[in-house]
Amino acid sequence: MADKSKLDEFGLIAELLAPLADNEAADGLTDDAARVAVPQGHELVISTDTLVAGVHFPEHGDAALVANRLLACNISDLAAKGATPFGCLLTLGVAETWGRAFVTSFVEALGQGLKAYGLQLWGGDTVRSQTAFVGLTVHGLVPHGSMLTRGGAQDGDDVYVTGTIGDAFLDMPESGAAYAAPTPPLAFGLGLRGLAHAAVDVSDGLLADLDHMCRASGGGMVIEAAAIPLSEAGRSHGNLAELVGAGDDLEIAFTAAQDKADALTALAEHHGIGLTRIGSFQKAAAPQAVLRDADGADITPQQRGFRHF
Amino acid sequence: MADKSKLDEFGLIAELLAPLADNEAADGLTDDAARVAVPQGHELVISTDTLVAGVHFPEHGDAALVANRLLACNISDLAAKGATPFGCLLTLGVAETWGRAFVTSFVEALGQGLKAYGLQLWGGDTVRSQTAFVGLTVHGLVPHGSMLTRGGAQDGDDVYVTGTIGDAFLDMPESGAAYAAPTPPLAFGLGLRGLAHAAVDVSDGLLADLDHMCRASGGGMVIEAAAIPLSEAGRSHGNLAELVGAGDDLEIAFTAAQDKADALTALAEHHGIGLTRIGSFQKAAAPQAVLRDADGADITPQQRGFRHF
Repeated sequence: MADKSKLDEFGLIAELLAPLADNEAADGLTDDAARVAVPQGHELVISTDTLVAGVHFPEHGDAALVANRLLACNISDLAAKGATPFGCLLTLGVAETWGRAFVTSFVEALGQGLKAYGLQLWGGDTVRSQTAFVGLTVHGLVPHGSMLTRGGAQDGDDVYVTGTIGDAFLDMPESGAAYAAPTPPLAFGLGLRGLAHAAVDVSDGLLADLDHMCRASGGGMVIEAAAIPLSEAGRSHGNLAELVGAGDDLEIAFTAAQDKADALTALAEHHGIGLTRIGSFQKAAAPQAVLRDADGADITPQQRGFRHF
Repeated sequence: MADKSKLDEFGLIAELLAPLADNEAADGLTDDAARVAVPQGHELVISTDTLVAGVHFPEHGDAALVANRLLACNISDLAAKGATPFGCLLTLGVAETWGRAFVTSFVEALGQGLKAYGLQLWGGDTVRSQTAFVGLTVHGLVPHGSMLTRGGAQDGDDVYVTGTIGDAFLDMPESGAAYAAPTPPLAFGLGLRGLAHAAVDVSDGLLADLDHMCRASGGGMVIEAAAIPLSEAGRSHGNLAELVGAGDDLEIAFTAAQDKADALTALAEHHGIGLTRIGSFQKAAAPQAVLRDADGADITPQQRGFRHF
């Protein structure tokens, strides 16, 4: 079922990935399963995200972009849970379009990312596919019972978001840095353990992800449109509805008690992260996020988020 | 990016999968990460396998076949490690060809399989893809330090295999039971902990998988061709080289000390599993499996296994 060039490509992938799996659990990828011991007093946080050619990345796109976005969207999930990256399994759906240069460049970017995030490569699966795809299942660690969830928001909490909103969307046409090499606020997320009540990573679009927290926490949010942090490009764009509905920001939205404001500001400054209070959470309100202008008028757009399909 | 019918299909998948995730770690799939506590004194065994339309299953094939094979090839990895199924994350690459009937039937078969294997559904990811694919990352449990590996074979060990070899290959054209609804010898695999020295699941082809054990254990095997267990269909087929080179058997090959023969026979009988001694392992031999006929002649075929791509 395989021609010679394909076999060589798969051999190349195995050869290139083996040095990245320099950890006890993977045993150098010599076996087909990883053995993982979880440190005492800790729980695992597990998430998986797959990117498909033509849907989540350009079919003839840059290999480093694919690796960076794959890592970032998975690490973003861990960051919003307050989970320290631990290890991962990689699935590669290899299409005809993947030559030696693509594979080499992909693995190089992957290796740099794994190192930067402190994420071990434990194993994976490489398969042939007409449509290229890449998938990662990531495992993070949290001290027992301390995982941040969408569901912990409490009455009167402030609502915050890191960074700026809409830049990945604005960058897409030019494959700018916010889209091509996103850097989820991981260290800040770890610092949120014990400070935040609820958290979510902004991947479907700010409003859609705030809605997730509202539904899980059983309450509503009032979000001040003027407070939503925008980059210069975002302000020039001007269409706020589009920016809060676009996905892929990979920032963290969260709620915390009002008396945590100073501690949160200090944490953000420590990690060089932009942090903005954008609204508040009320238990009594309907379970969704409502966008208000300066006069208090409801300007919530109908399109509440980007669906990744 | 999505038309209405697609959105409905994704909604349907979420709706159908939620009841299958009836466990604490998944929290009903309301969050985008699972929280998993590993029982004290245990380690995780983690493996991932993905099946692609047109490569690992027919593009317009039966949905139950896809679910059954996805579960079986992943459970087979755990069985050969002596690992008790614990939980999994599911990735669905949904193509245009997947209608409501396909999705419903897939989830139904998946649910039955999860129940039968005692495997929890913890989470996953659903994406759109031009080529359909299904992936599973499975987590099993072993008491600390007791995972079976490919690398533990000891000098003078007997080599065994469960079941019969080549039936999945022979069944393929008609989608017979061995291919469509394989049943990896899971309970038997758990019983091998403490009895076997090394083990591997037969997925690439018997000879290729024995080679894996040889290389990892640093020694060679002499396999008696006449001893290799064949079904009636296999015996009629007659071409042994083809059968030991074909993949997807999902049986367990393993090595054990000669004095474990009676205990192994009893274990196999207890679980109603066919078990055959097919050769022996020697540390001094070159690290590969050699097939011998009754006269001692080397009849090892050149094609040593099926590459899944």
